[in-house]
Amino acid sequence: MDITRARATTTAPTQWISGPAWIDELAAPDSDLHIAVDSVRFAPGARTAWHSHPVGQVLVVTDGEGRVQRRGEPVETIRAGDAVRILAGEWHWHGAGPTTFMTHLAIEEIAADGTQPEWGPAVTEADYTS
Amino acid sequence: MDITRARATTTAPTQWISGPAWIDELAAPDSDLHIAVDSVRFAPGARTAWHSHPVGQVLVVTDGEGRVQRRGEPVETIRAGDAVRILAGEWHWHGAGPTTFMTHLAIEEIAADGTQPEWGPAVTEADYTS
Repeated sequence: MDITRARATTTAPTQWISGPAWIDELAAPDSDLHIAVDSVRFAPGARTAWHSHPVGQVLVVTDGEGRVQRRGEPVETIRAGDAVRILAGEWHWHGAGPTTFMTHLAIEEIAADGTQPEWGPAVTEADYTS
Repeated sequence: MDITRARATTTAPTQWISGPAWIDELAAPDSDLHIAVDSVRFAPGARTAWHSHPVGQVLVVTDGEGRVQRRGEPVETIRAGDAVRILAGEWHWHGAGPTTFMTHLAIEEIAADGTQPEWGPAVTEADYTS
């Protein structure tokens, strides 16, 4: 058992997230813990690129209001208290609203064979504001 | 992808948690998502019984101040923003403080073979207040 009490906040990598965003790593995977938990804060307008996960991911919105979209489906508004389940291989993006900050926990299941998430193009303004 | 927006809060089962506590199920496991996420609210004095998980668990404290203890180690105070990693087979308990409410997300890895957590005795007052 270990406790993470104070985290160094890092600036989100710009190849995966466009716009100002910050990440706190809350829990890293271990040999017998196949979960990674990060708190991600998106300034208004910031969002991930399109991506998919090899296993699954759960987002729990802890602050503000943002957006999530699965490829081929409408953009959905998500608010503090909402949880999003994203299953293996579903292409999607998530981020802040155009005028609203959003923080979520990103809870990612780690693939046993080490497969990493797959990243695609940035989300266009047309998709973001649709 | 699916979004959980409003949850029915349930009273925590008294065989696992002593004292008033409430659970919101945020994300249930699926055939390709091996994670369960629940928000658990503990009134002052409420705590789980001793238990262990077959794989691993992460707790993220979202409100208040509480306590966690691994068997054989001192009781630790945890506060909003803290995260606790509990590895497979580690006997432990978690709950509110004696005078403080505590809410945490309980993020549990689901064992592929269906093995459930193992539950032991209630946490005594002596252990709780040590």
